[in-house]
Amino acid sequence: MKKRKIIMDCDPGHDDAIAIILAAAQPELDILAITTVSGNAEIEKTTMNALKVCDLVSLHNVIVSKGASEPMMRRRENAPSIHGDSGLDGPEFPALSRSWSEEHGVDTIIRMIKESEDRVTLLPTGPLTNIALALIKAPEMKENIEEIILMGGGTFGNWTPTAEFNIWADPEAAKKVFDSGIPLVVMGLDITHQAVATDNVINQVMNIDNNVAKKVGELLAFFKSAYKETFDFDGPPVHDVLTVAYCVAPELFTFKEVNIVVETRGEYTAGTTSVDLLGVTGRKPNAKFGLTLDVDGFWDLMIKALKTYSAS
Amino acid sequence: MKKRKIIMDCDPGHDDAIAIILAAAQPELDILAITTVSGNAEIEKTTMNALKVCDLVSLHNVIVSKGASEPMMRRRENAPSIHGDSGLDGPEFPALSRSWSEEHGVDTIIRMIKESEDRVTLLPTGPLTNIALALIKAPEMKENIEEIILMGGGTFGNWTPTAEFNIWADPEAAKKVFDSGIPLVVMGLDITHQAVATDNVINQVMNIDNNVAKKVGELLAFFKSAYKETFDFDGPPVHDVLTVAYCVAPELFTFKEVNIVVETRGEYTAGTTSVDLLGVTGRKPNAKFGLTLDVDGFWDLMIKALKTYSAS
Amino acid sequence: MKKRKIIMDCDPGHDDAIAIILAAAQPELDILAITTVSGNAEIEKTTMNALKVCDLVSLHNVIVSKGASEPMMRRRENAPSIHGDSGLDGPEFPALSRSWSEEHGVDTIIRMIKESEDRVTLLPTGPLTNIALALIKAPEMKENIEEIILMGGGTFGNWTPTAEFNIWADPEAAKKVFDSGIPLVVMGLDITHQAVATDNVINQVMNIDNNVAKKVGELLAFFKSAYKETFDFDGPPVHDVLTVAYCVAPELFTFKEVNIVVETRGEYTAGTTSVDLLGVTGRKPNAKFGLTLDVDGFWDLMIKALKTYSAS
Amino acid sequence: MKKRKIIMDCDPGHDDAIAIILAAAQPELDILAITTVSGNAEIEKTTMNALKVCDLVSLHNVIVSKGASEPMMRRRENAPSIHGDSGLDGPEFPALSRSWSEEHGVDTIIRMIKESEDRVTLLPTGPLTNIALALIKAPEMKENIEEIILMGGGTFGNWTPTAEFNIWADPEAAKKVFDSGIPLVVMGLDITHQAVATDNVINQVMNIDNNVAKKVGELLAFFKSAYKETFDFDGPPVHDVLTVAYCVAPELFTFKEVNIVVETRGEYTAGTTSVDLLGVTGRKPNAKFGLTLDVDGFWDLMIKALKTYSAS
Ligand SMILES: [Ca+2]
Ligand SMILES: [Ca+2]
Ligand SMILES: [Ca+2]
Ligand SMILES: [Ca+2]
Repeated sequence: MKKRKIIMDCDPGHDDAIAIILAAAQPELDILAITTVSGNAEIEKTTMNALKVCDLVSLHNVIVSKGASEPMMRRRENAPSIHGDSGLDGPEFPALSRSWSEEHGVDTIIRMIKESEDRVTLLPTGPLTNIALALIKAPEMKENIEEIILMGGGTFGNWTPTAEFNIWADPEAAKKVFDSGIPLVVMGLDITHQAVATDNVINQVMNIDNNVAKKVGELLAFFKSAYKETFDFDGPPVHDVLTVAYCVAPELFTFKEVNIVVETRGEYTAGTTSVDLLGVTGRKPNAKFGLTLDVDGFWDLMIKALKTYSAS
Repeated sequence: MKKRKIIMDCDPGHDDAIAIILAAAQPELDILAITTVSGNAEIEKTTMNALKVCDLVSLHNVIVSKGASEPMMRRRENAPSIHGDSGLDGPEFPALSRSWSEEHGVDTIIRMIKESEDRVTLLPTGPLTNIALALIKAPEMKENIEEIILMGGGTFGNWTPTAEFNIWADPEAAKKVFDSGIPLVVMGLDITHQAVATDNVINQVMNIDNNVAKKVGELLAFFKSAYKETFDFDGPPVHDVLTVAYCVAPELFTFKEVNIVVETRGEYTAGTTSVDLLGVTGRKPNAKFGLTLDVDGFWDLMIKALKTYSAS
Repeated sequence: MKKRKIIMDCDPGHDDAIAIILAAAQPELDILAITTVSGNAEIEKTTMNALKVCDLVSLHNVIVSKGASEPMMRRRENAPSIHGDSGLDGPEFPALSRSWSEEHGVDTIIRMIKESEDRVTLLPTGPLTNIALALIKAPEMKENIEEIILMGGGTFGNWTPTAEFNIWADPEAAKKVFDSGIPLVVMGLDITHQAVATDNVINQVMNIDNNVAKKVGELLAFFKSAYKETFDFDGPPVHDVLTVAYCVAPELFTFKEVNIVVETRGEYTAGTTSVDLLGVTGRKPNAKFGLTLDVDGFWDLMIKALKTYSAS
Repeated sequence: MKKRKIIMDCDPGHDDAIAIILAAAQPELDILAITTVSGNAEIEKTTMNALKVCDLVSLHNVIVSKGASEPMMRRRENAPSIHGDSGLDGPEFPALSRSWSEEHGVDTIIRMIKESEDRVTLLPTGPLTNIALALIKAPEMKENIEEIILMGGGTFGNWTPTAEFNIWADPEAAKKVFDSGIPLVVMGLDITHQAVATDNVINQVMNIDNNVAKKVGELLAFFKSAYKETFDFDGPPVHDVLTVAYCVAPELFTFKEVNIVVETRGEYTAGTTSVDLLGVTGRKPNAKFGLTLDVDGFWDLMIKALKTYSAS
């Protein structure tokens, strides 16, 4: 079987971490690289977190490269209220087995895409800074990108009334990506809020007898309390995990082909995605926008993946 | 009984027309003036339409003044796809019994507010051009405004993906009103889309045996087909009518006190209302934002009002 | 002789005051109205100052109407560092002989233009709020406007590095005027900085033996010290006076027909006029932009006018 | 003697070419790298042009790296009307002795700065894309930058009425650089327009008997005709050359320490530099802004440099 080549560009982050864990369990995926970006936490932290997760699921041969430490134009802002001080609060992790690559994340993205014989799929689950910088530095690599399946945006916001965190944190980078002409699959808040880790889900995870599932359980427990505290949600939506799920099980999703643009100039609306579900703008579709999720199917996929890890 | 003094600033428009018809049937309301604005149709048309409705419900003593013929800063755009060429397509209306006042709508608003012994409530159901101009010309009149109950905005859009027509048509005017410090009640799309004239509702209206109800039935029939055609809605939401309903039956509504600001500078988001339902902005509430409507109670109010008109 | 009908819309202000004094001495001008606006000082002050000047030069029959007390969209800011607390610091003026009209300045402008048999020339020498509001309220009056000769803008700024005070104080109003299609003559800083009241000029004025010249001398003396203090200029430029001078002696001026647009959205450049002297934008000319002034001729005109006033 | 280490980031371009030629003749300068950017012409052309100039003046050991092929956020636009189709029209150049480095220009900038024992001075004479990208990718390198001496901006424009070409071509990059906190020396149009190659200057150059001077004469001849045609200038200003001249002979310049910010959001003013010469903004100085040039001294420096090249 030909494996699908992916690059995970992320800011772990609880849901990024779980996304990596889900991806690592998929035999049909070939993770070319994990690159990190400032987002949920500062770049050193998100990079360390990526390495922790790689150790946890034994992704010892996947390059982990540290990417952009700040947004393209704006002041850096992180999200400790949601992910804790480390960016991955909750579980304890052992000492790291290795450090990050000397190669900058942006260069890893460019090199991997250029070197790959098959077209590469990008799975960005943090601010889009690295992807945008790669596109500016090496626009010719577009040709070898299969599609970008990203978590970000939506028809409503969570960080401002109209903007979602990943897009809001670097609107200029997001604009660059959305205007790039590369095929996009967008997992916005509309669909990621359907993927809530209920108590029932968390219990199922906790009952799986291996160390990976145990850590995921602890991640979800922390995430749950943060979402309760900050947004008064009953369970935490595992936003980023949907990008991986779509990659291997697109049949769990419905979506609509729409035009999406990113606001960078508003007084109040920077980082807002204008998602033309009604088709009122006359602009051509540039993205598949996730509408509905087969929630049970999604969690089945997750549980099944967690069970593949060997018992501790 | 002390009547509540209101000024209806509107762009009839099917739902504006029905709002006037509902208001005219309320003994506890004292309609000081009807002022018109360019919006659903050009100013001459919306003014003629206001006069047609006044004739229909015998509001012969209420001054009807023609207001702004274009937005403050933007190019004028109307909405014939929704309201037809006349702005009030559907029913036939007899020749008008009178013309509009010589006084400009903005001046009527200012004069009525200044002359009134009691504080006046404004019910704007079109673009906010007249209200903004009145505030610029006579800022001191703010003192005598009880509140502004307006139809506009919401957490999603209908004219662009993120903007509702009334706010989009004159964002600068809307900004002026939302930043004015005057108590605001905002009937946005979130709540007005709950007030859909279903076939059942339309049938009830049609079965009332008087000329006013007959015209309302014809208005709803046209409105239904326009909403079907343009937005693929099964029934038309009678947006503007909620301002009058709230005025006389606030118990039909739930709302939340939130901060709302209007975007005027975005590349894609001009006219977007940023409604801080999550309380993430730290900005002080400046509006009651309508959340839910007692739909049955609302239509009962409407049907009851229509029945008060004498049989033809 | 047919007199040229003008409306002076101003915010006196030392140079506005001298502009009125120059105009009042011109037999070929028919001053239809003086309307005031918030600018150099608050609206009550600029209106009182206009009345003081009218008393000084016996313009008892010219209507003085109070206009806008704040800009269309921005926060009001005045210029006490240049014009003192009263807006017209320096001379003492006797008690006023009358108060301002009950008619709002915007309405006076509209009425005078509509009632005039001949086309009217507007001479705005403050922020353009009144003119913009008149255009929004009564766009049809455009037809009867001969031209607008205004003081404002330039290729450099005085209130910000790129914006001149009058335009900066209400950029939205300025945009409305510059985009109106009405013939414009623009006296920007490029040319008004040529009209500096040197010590020699001030001495000439002081040596004229009448009360009007005496007051002008005192105005110039105060203005000189303010310009020295704030901008380290050796003499004060009498900006606004050029609008009147152009009206009666256009031969003193050279100008270029250019396109001028007003920035309203910049982060740093609100109120900047983009004056296309090089013809690089491809936009059609909409203004005569003053380039050079016959400085001696200008001051001769002024001195001659001051001498027409009767000796005290 | 300790040589001053410089990186020339450029888009040759006639004046960029002459700047390199001047720099190559300065014994006190150590050119660490020449990096290129899209600007006067497309990136391949400006890079080829840089290599042509290196061959001409025997800079065989200086790395030439190709940088950004497009601006950070905007559409690429070049300036063939001024520099011809090749970006360096006029002289004939022999076949290149080498190609550009495999290293991206942005990485060369970062590496050279990080590897240098002494602080490095940057001389950007094109759009600031490379510098901005380097700052985003490796913000820590700031520490080892001595200063940035750049050609760009001014109190007036040449590409729009208010914007100079280099800043206008990539305003976001310019904003990044101007807001970086790195010491800046800004050669804007105000001073570069003083460095006009008059016929007298061109004749002096033509009379120097070596191949380098001959090529410079041909470059100036073409540049002269382009400036005549496009801007109706009598002689071409050799903008970029001032950065090198300042580097070795700062005594030829007067400047003022001022605050300069770059507009990125205006409707008409993108790329405008707001140069606070009057000190009206209250913002802290971040740049030395060139005011006056010792024109004779400047051309003496240039002529002397050209004479150092060996006779053909
Ligand atoms: Ca994430
Ligand atoms: Ca309406
Ligand atoms: Ca003035
Ligand atoms: Ca250059």
